Amino acid sequence: MTRASLVVIGSELTRGIIQDKHTILVSRELTHIGIHFSESVVIPDDGTIREVLGALIRNNDIVLVTGGLGPTTDDMTRSAIAEAGGKRLVRHEGAWNHLLETLKDRAYGANEKQAYIPEGFTLIPNPNGTAPGFYGMVDKTLIVSMPGPPREMEPMFRSSVLPVLMRHIGAKEEERDEYSTFLISEAKLEELTKEADSTLDWGTRFQDYRISLYVSGGDRERRTKAMDKLKALTGEGRIAEGDCTALGLLVDELKRRGETIALAESCTGGLAAANLTSLPGSSSYMLGSVTSYAYSVKEKVLGVRKETIEKYGAVSDECAMEMAEGVRRELGSDWAFSITGVAGPDKSEGKEVGTVYFGFSGKGRETQSASIHLFSFGRESIRRRSTAAAFILLRLYMEGKDTKAISEGWKVF
Amino acid sequence: MTRASLVVIGSELTRGIIQDKHTILVSRELTHIGIHFSESVVIPDDGTIREVLGALIRNNDIVLVTGGLGPTTDDMTRSAIAEAGGKRLVRHEGAWNHLLETLKDRAYGANEKQAYIPEGFTLIPNPNGTAPGFYGMVDKTLIVSMPGPPREMEPMFRSSVLPVLMRHIGAKEEERDEYSTFLISEAKLEELTKEADSTLDWGTRFQDYRISLYVSGGDRERRTKAMDKLKALTGEGRIAEGDCTALGLLVDELKRRGETIALAESCTGGLAAANLTSLPGSSSYMLGSVTSYAYSVKEKVLGVRKETIEKYGAVSDECAMEMAEGVRRELGSDWAFSITGVAGPDKSEGKEVGTVYFGFSGKGRETQSASIHLFSFGRESIRRRSTAAAFILLRLYMEGKDTKAISEGWKVF
Repeated sequence: MTRASLVVIGSELTRGIIQDKHTILVSRELTHIGIHFSESVVIPDDGTIREVLGALIRNNDIVLVTGGLGPTTDDMTRSAIAEAGGKRLVRHEGAWNHLLETLKDRAYGANEKQAYIPEGFTLIPNPNGTAPGFYGMVDKTLIVSMPGPPREMEPMFRSSVLPVLMRHIGAKEEERDEYSTFLISEAKLEELTKEADSTLDWGTRFQDYRISLYVSGGDRERRTKAMDKLKALTGEGRIAEGDCTALGLLVDELKRRGETIALAESCTGGLAAANLTSLPGSSSYMLGSVTSYAYSVKEKVLGVRKETIEKYGAVSDECAMEMAEGVRRELGSDWAFSITGVAGPDKSEGKEVGTVYFGFSGKGRETQSASIHLFSFGRESIRRRSTAAAFILLRLYMEGKDTKAISEGWKVF
Repeated sequence: MTRASLVVIGSELTRGIIQDKHTILVSRELTHIGIHFSESVVIPDDGTIREVLGALIRNNDIVLVTGGLGPTTDDMTRSAIAEAGGKRLVRHEGAWNHLLETLKDRAYGANEKQAYIPEGFTLIPNPNGTAPGFYGMVDKTLIVSMPGPPREMEPMFRSSVLPVLMRHIGAKEEERDEYSTFLISEAKLEELTKEADSTLDWGTRFQDYRISLYVSGGDRERRTKAMDKLKALTGEGRIAEGDCTALGLLVDELKRRGETIALAESCTGGLAAANLTSLPGSSSYMLGSVTSYAYSVKEKVLGVRKETIEKYGAVSDECAMEMAEGVRRELGSDWAFSITGVAGPDKSEGKEVGTVYFGFSGKGRETQSASIHLFSFGRESIRRRSTAAAFILLRLYMEGKDTKAISEGWKVF
């Protein structure tokens, strides 16, 4: 297996002033294309690069370096790489002309250094800054040097460096289908993909609010069949095509219809509303919400009947439905949903932590409910996952589906 | 100068699944006490520790290691350190008894490993998990081993390891005062501390929702005088003693009084309510909230007068006060506040992005307002800072202060 290391250079990083963002990006993407990420080394820009580079080149097939390409004397990545490879630094005319064009009369003598790369290396243009990157071989190891600022490094890494690495390791640029999955743990998802079709190549990536799923290998028909099987295993609405979030899917649908939403929250306490209003322009679909934490607010503001709470409890299908109806009536929206559950850490009304009920109401539509039982990874996790579940279920309700039956089919989390 | 390195062990870190948080913490604190932080090495928990430890011990006076202390076979920090020092692993009876007490009948044979430390090393108790830390000398280098999960590592590092390091380098344990600051940028805070007293040693640390501020040097009187000057420069309520958050200060006050709260949000869209309900037991003080995104909800649910919005706009002192009064009346709480402003990206009602108004209402108290003009670092940042500002101002209102005058004194952000 190809081994790769990363050197992250920057005294702001070793003095604790800024957070290194390159290790998580590079290690994630390299792992994803099947390269073993063996080490990340964070060092100051005081020349320590000279001390660490030799051993990393001996122990790795690929060494990536970020930082140390600026015009000041502290920045010595260029010369350290040239020395390690026994090469001269030569001026790259294209890079020099780019520097002159970018900086114009702000170009100082010190900038000229930024147009030098080790002889025989290939330049990587940097559209977002003055320091280009470069790559080439030292002995049997591929060395890639990139600028340090994330806004320069990240686009260069994604659009220029990753393709170089894939060619280098001979990875075929295979047909690959991408999906987004909701409310399924990464470990469970990996187990289910094997059950769906163990001959295909599956990959997952954890992102905020979702786990991305990739599948390649086989032919399109085989992949489609495997995805259908996986969807059947996870239950309706848990997997969507492409890179998307549960929030994004719901908001797209609301905007497409030009319709409005309101919501009532109990255990999520405002989190679903905060999500719905996090996007610019949210006032086009969002009318508002009621956080009905106390029973009295459920009754007085949302019109939930006292008998409903006494008979079924506040964490129940019945209360969830009355909350959704109440908030839609009071706020006058086209659609409404509610969330009421036990976020923990303690049980409530005799119901287990992770028990969550939802209500859905729409103009001229029968009110419905849904319920899930989330495994508890803590209060915030239950609140976040409940929010995502509500977004998914409301969209299915808007499509005329039976939310109760769907949620009962969600056995796997 | 004393040189120190850090080894961060965890395959989740080299597969890009989680972000390393130890490098920034350790490098910042070590820099702060005058230790040169020479290198951070992030490696998988596959035994790579054995390969890197020797060179780090030769090149450093202090080597800190996090992770690799769990009960599974992947975790081999213990044996790697013992081998590097030519020492046996011996069972620490205190640690073993702690394990038995913590895990009870869930203690498996594999856990016994966690009670072993290199012979002659000193145990560091771990009140937050099963793996204790330990430290001792290998040749002329001090080695410190800590568990990997931040919620175990961070308290151990701060309360046990930092004092060991300070004794090791012979640093005086200076008297140091700690404060929490709100709504001030780190750069601005550094500038103001120099203005307050440039002869003292000031340190800052960015944390979620606040920036911690440390001051040492001089005598207590001098430090107190400097802090008074700094408080005058920042305005009332922006600096609190000790390590605390704006949310925590408000919640403590509500719990102390045994009183309840409700709130009405516009631009923050549920974020303040989500914060107030994020803590376990929040139902003791939180009744609920209304997110009144649309004008119609402000009028219908909160009873804001149509003329108020027509005359002053929804982003105004007048509307903020009616929102706070309305939500307190409807939900029946002891205290209430409101937030209405322009989160961006576009101006609204002719008001600039970052303009935020607050209303405050309390039983038998005159309703008040407040307003701030935040510099825009983006929509989410405005929403978060508005939320913190509301928590601070409500607490001052509860103390009988004039919130409008206070907010007008907040010139610096």
